[in-house]
Amino acid sequence: MPGKSPSRSRAGRLVVLDGAGRGRSRARKDKGVVWLVGAGPGDPDLMTVKAVRLLQGADVVVHDRLTPQPILDLAGADARLIDVGKRKSRHTLPQEGINELLVGLALQGLKVVRLKGGDPFIFGRGGEEMSACRAAGVECHVVPGVSAGLAAGAASGAPLTHRGLAQSVTFVTGHAASGGEPDLDWASLARVNQTVVIYMGLSTAGRIATRLIEAGRAPSTPAVVVESASLPHERRLATTLGRLEESVAGLDGPAILIVGEVAALADVEHQAKDKDPRQHGDERKHA
Amino acid sequence: MPGKSPSRSRAGRLVVLDGAGRGRSRARKDKGVVWLVGAGPGDPDLMTVKAVRLLQGADVVVHDRLTPQPILDLAGADARLIDVGKRKSRHTLPQEGINELLVGLALQGLKVVRLKGGDPFIFGRGGEEMSACRAAGVECHVVPGVSAGLAAGAASGAPLTHRGLAQSVTFVTGHAASGGEPDLDWASLARVNQTVVIYMGLSTAGRIATRLIEAGRAPSTPAVVVESASLPHERRLATTLGRLEESVAGLDGPAILIVGEVAALADVEHQAKDKDPRQHGDERKHA
Repeated sequence: MPGKSPSRSRAGRLVVLDGAGRGRSRARKDKGVVWLVGAGPGDPDLMTVKAVRLLQGADVVVHDRLTPQPILDLAGADARLIDVGKRKSRHTLPQEGINELLVGLALQGLKVVRLKGGDPFIFGRGGEEMSACRAAGVECHVVPGVSAGLAAGAASGAPLTHRGLAQSVTFVTGHAASGGEPDLDWASLARVNQTVVIYMGLSTAGRIATRLIEAGRAPSTPAVVVESASLPHERRLATTLGRLEESVAGLDGPAILIVGEVAALADVEHQAKDKDPRQHGDERKHA
Repeated sequence: MPGKSPSRSRAGRLVVLDGAGRGRSRARKDKGVVWLVGAGPGDPDLMTVKAVRLLQGADVVVHDRLTPQPILDLAGADARLIDVGKRKSRHTLPQEGINELLVGLALQGLKVVRLKGGDPFIFGRGGEEMSACRAAGVECHVVPGVSAGLAAGAASGAPLTHRGLAQSVTFVTGHAASGGEPDLDWASLARVNQTVVIYMGLSTAGRIATRLIEAGRAPSTPAVVVESASLPHERRLATTLGRLEESVAGLDGPAILIVGEVAALADVEHQAKDKDPRQHGDERKHA
């Protein structure tokens, strides 16, 4: 477990020393609680009011490596921050370790905010953390957030559903547990009149596009790529399914791929091939 | 167009009289703008910080009948509120009328906030309003929000994606344009290892369940129904696909149906048949 261990003071109260050596006390009888909080796509203004309030009142904030600093800055001055994705060179703390950390902190009587990018229940593994809390008898609440896919739609002007173009939207992950190709139902995803939103799909974009085309989706199907949606360095580019792989070649941040006819409505005027998408980072106007 | 028409004052400035007869002036040279703002599922605390700020600074707020009063109360005292779904006995303002209203207000130089329940781009018809603004040369921005499906997952403790249970999630609408059965791809939706989130599906729940079962989804597939997610009168109940129709029989508010193996993780302990779901309205704890 990262950070220092809690110790009992002479007064019989639990004292937690944070990294800076500050001591904070908390009555032992306090019941700990874990809040799984959706932090939204990255812009602090796209956090919910509830998320901000909980962050400000937390004893401990458990977050990932990619959590933007302006969001972490909202935590109270006394709060202990634990980065469970810090050790970039080694492995990050495995999910089971995070589960144990959350339970352990709550059992110390602490108010724990577990910040999840986007929404805790959409590719956030929030369900696993919730289940671990339940199994340990720890009170656990979930606060929904603006998932990155929704932020990418808003930022690019691509409505995820739209009359006549998409009567449903499916969220999938391009991440493959094996490191290879994601195991998705390509035939279903290849059907028209729906939008497919792909999370964590940069490295597998080429294989995803190939499978969708093999399953019958036209290579000319419009697509939009939004990197770092809602952040100052956000980039958006318009492309097609057939050119998806080459289009994402220069990107390396967290990105959302939106595939479907709705992507033609995006206000990203220039094709990836024609112009450097970096020049469009500030165009967020849909007029 | 609801509300009074704008008129020009002698000073050559545009004066808008709101319903209470108050006059507010605005320099004609001001450029109008339309913000399509996701208001979240209903709880004002689940609005984004940005949505609250825009609402507070709006000249005009265009909203629907179901927008909760505590959200409307966040608008500035001088803001004009226009309910485009007010006339319940007659037809509500058709979508084309709303589009024209937004454009007309912006062309008067006003800062217009168009509040959309949940997220503007998930079954919110926000794309149509955005397109209308564009066509008229009106500046338009989209602010994503917490879609009701995400709020329903968080409230019930049903993760929309979960390792081993659901590697994708599809959002569909149960609303049928014809008033009959929604035209959905039942074979795709019937596959296991995915979650189906149904918006506006109360009246068609029986037909949806029948089609999914015919297409191969087991009648024993767990399902959760969340009515008025995040609001004080929220109700949640656990059921199965085979019993979905009878389970929703007593509900009449806006509801989200979550169908899939993840629904078994919901903390709604009692089946709809065994106990009145109204008794569970306050259980939002997932311990």
